Amino acid sequence: MSLRSKDLLGIQGMTADEINLILDTALTFKDVSERDIKKVPALRGKTVINLFYEASTRTRTSFELAGKRLSADVINISTSTSSVVKGETLLDTAQNIEAMKCHMIIVRHSCSGAPEYLSKRLKSSVINAGDGFHEHPTQALLDMFTIREKLGSLKGCTIAIVGDIAHSRVARSNIHGLTTMGARVRVCGPPTMIPQGIEHLGVEVHYDMDKAVEGVDVVMMLRLQLERQTAGLLPGVREYARFYGLDQTRLNRAAKHAIVMHPGPMNRGVEISSEVADNTSVILDQVTNGVAIRMAVMFLLSGGSKAEA
Amino acid sequence: MSLRSKDLLGIQGMTADEINLILDTALTFKDVSERDIKKVPALRGKTVINLFYEASTRTRTSFELAGKRLSADVINISTSTSSVVKGETLLDTAQNIEAMKCHMIIVRHSCSGAPEYLSKRLKSSVINAGDGFHEHPTQALLDMFTIREKLGSLKGCTIAIVGDIAHSRVARSNIHGLTTMGARVRVCGPPTMIPQGIEHLGVEVHYDMDKAVEGVDVVMMLRLQLERQTAGLLPGVREYARFYGLDQTRLNRAAKHAIVMHPGPMNRGVEISSEVADNTSVILDQVTNGVAIRMAVMFLLSGGSKAEA
Amino acid sequence: MSLRSKDLLGIQGMTADEINLILDTALTFKDVSERDIKKVPALRGKTVINLFYEASTRTRTSFELAGKRLSADVINISTSTSSVVKGETLLDTAQNIEAMKCHMIIVRHSCSGAPEYLSKRLKSSVINAGDGFHEHPTQALLDMFTIREKLGSLKGCTIAIVGDIAHSRVARSNIHGLTTMGARVRVCGPPTMIPQGIEHLGVEVHYDMDKAVEGVDVVMMLRLQLERQTAGLLPGVREYARFYGLDQTRLNRAAKHAIVMHPGPMNRGVEISSEVADNTSVILDQVTNGVAIRMAVMFLLSGGSKAEA
Repeated sequence: MSLRSKDLLGIQGMTADEINLILDTALTFKDVSERDIKKVPALRGKTVINLFYEASTRTRTSFELAGKRLSADVINISTSTSSVVKGETLLDTAQNIEAMKCHMIIVRHSCSGAPEYLSKRLKSSVINAGDGFHEHPTQALLDMFTIREKLGSLKGCTIAIVGDIAHSRVARSNIHGLTTMGARVRVCGPPTMIPQGIEHLGVEVHYDMDKAVEGVDVVMMLRLQLERQTAGLLPGVREYARFYGLDQTRLNRAAKHAIVMHPGPMNRGVEISSEVADNTSVILDQVTNGVAIRMAVMFLLSGGSKAEA
Repeated sequence: MSLRSKDLLGIQGMTADEINLILDTALTFKDVSERDIKKVPALRGKTVINLFYEASTRTRTSFELAGKRLSADVINISTSTSSVVKGETLLDTAQNIEAMKCHMIIVRHSCSGAPEYLSKRLKSSVINAGDGFHEHPTQALLDMFTIREKLGSLKGCTIAIVGDIAHSRVARSNIHGLTTMGARVRVCGPPTMIPQGIEHLGVEVHYDMDKAVEGVDVVMMLRLQLERQTAGLLPGVREYARFYGLDQTRLNRAAKHAIVMHPGPMNRGVEISSEVADNTSVILDQVTNGVAIRMAVMFLLSGGSKAEA
Repeated sequence: MSLRSKDLLGIQGMTADEINLILDTALTFKDVSERDIKKVPALRGKTVINLFYEASTRTRTSFELAGKRLSADVINISTSTSSVVKGETLLDTAQNIEAMKCHMIIVRHSCSGAPEYLSKRLKSSVINAGDGFHEHPTQALLDMFTIREKLGSLKGCTIAIVGDIAHSRVARSNIHGLTTMGARVRVCGPPTMIPQGIEHLGVEVHYDMDKAVEGVDVVMMLRLQLERQTAGLLPGVREYARFYGLDQTRLNRAAKHAIVMHPGPMNRGVEISSEVADNTSVILDQVTNGVAIRMAVMFLLSGGSKAEA
């Protein structure tokens, strides 16, 4: 079995089989990162470009490491050094990169749809590393991998996603993936941060966090973008923390075996207390699994099949 | 046969044989970039430094890729992160780099002559990646490679170079190279942008673009630096586009088989129309060939001969 | 024999045997950098992270080269691109990096103690690449290596360290190392730049540079941080140069065989005259030796022993 598309643009539209293929392949690659020599030759002699129009350390580093552990040559291009400042169009920049015979372009962009726009015009594989408020598929894949690893299966799990749902590409990708895999999803946040009509994606909407986390298997906290405050979407950070932050007391309402997730970077004391972050969360497992997921995605998009991994 | 100098500082002074040697060697390396495994071991265990005092994505990426495809370790140093901010001299910075036993230094600098100044004081090979208004030799080499590839030979071709000739290192390097190879060169631009006495380089001067492109085999458009307007060198961008921009109507005056070139990044709708850029131009071939040319130059300066390539 | 710690945080507390082990191992690696193929496979398949919270070209490049010549994958993270801007704690950033299964973290930070703080909380090896006014251990090691190389032995040598002793991590690391190795150390600078009680570290304090350099084997000049002037610590750069700059006349007071050192980048004409810098100094040897020292440190912290090097 292999992926149907040359690109990974989003989780929406992926089948459960495709998601399972990636998660299963990632399991093999997780072993590679545990070895003394963390390298396989799968992408030797191929070029992977990290084209980042938004600053990011962790995602960029994770993709860079994944590429290097597959033996690819990885080249970073970020806006600060880019021809973008000279007014070149996104497509011209990407076509130039492709003309240098690169194999794969990993794109982060503040505009929703930018990776898809490129994917239709390039022969190279395009991987969406986060686009606007749209999708962040590798994040959802690593989250699903981590839940499956910790709880055995996604099917039948209940996950509460808490925070600024409206502006979160992490939430959107996870909603698509988790519902496809047979999990139940609750979303929770202040009314200004819950998009109207989100029930149509098959999720339960909560405004009261105590109720949202009641009995769940997973609490997935989102990062509060502090700049939302100036936009008038929340009254204040302290109030937000009181109503939508996760501390131990609130966590006690979830299932006993519940795990806590966060895509990072955390605002300690805002959306998550240090006690929860340091004792109960699986945040660092998510980071470890992120490299394995990205290796699996790059490998599969390059035409690798699970058996070879 | 091999190159006479340890450095590539400019096209001026190079013989036709040397230029042909580079173009022929690049032909071999172009094949490497088409392979599944785009690597040769020529520079394994050697260090190549990209020392860029001016921002640049495409040229830096092209050199980085060329170095990596030759199996060199490539290290990027750009002014934003550099000791330059601490007031160190250019020579001290370069001597420090050389003391770390690097093999080759690729220099881009806003001062004409900076690469030559370093080349005389360093044992490492220095490659000029663009210096002030002086030269950009690898650009001219990739342009000549592309013309030869598309039209069979440089000898006897007529090339119109259109734009801000006075401030263009691309134009200067191409004028030297093309005239050496037996091509005829016309330059065209507003009078404020044509340097006095440029006829002495063996070119024909035009101020009327319609006449300049009449019957030519190649139209080479230069990027308009929009900051020239504030410097009073042009009345306005729209007027510039009208008199010195290339659209299909104007292109029809050239030979039927004429090709259109641009060193990028393009200002679409200013010096070149999107119609011409997307349908007739060989701009992306230029980018592809740039990697091959840079591989050839690095290889030859490292003592490689054409037969080994 | 091997190092006792998984980390290199400072020279203070290291034994003479440990320092000798590093210097002897570096001797082997210096040879590697002289070879045509400057690579050994010691760290193949391992990841080294350069985590730089202060701008630096030469130290970052030196570590990057050292890692690559040991065949490691090296990833650079600098504050400008880092999640730091998003308010993540230092520890969260470092734990995230570690979760990606990196092998070694090289940290530069403006806060004294930052590398030690991390080292206690991470399983990865931490190398201090300069922390606040505290220590810069690889700089002191490369300085000791260079003195030993040029003068045969550290034991019995007299070294004058001249400049802003109070704010120099280079001075502190060298004082600890040189006194441990049996050298005599004089420190010299304006009274505002000599910390009270520094005699307790076993050094002689001088305020008159002519006396400080009298008969010494080594003059080690420190870089004047020009921003100290606005802080009121020196009356003016010209006066500083007159009283505490090294020119040939002053150097003549040192031993005939005396060598001149500087950690770079130099302020020519301030703390060191160009005549001395270009004719008598061993500054470029220091840079060359820096790569060898960093290779040795990385190798030994990875569990390598001298015999294998």
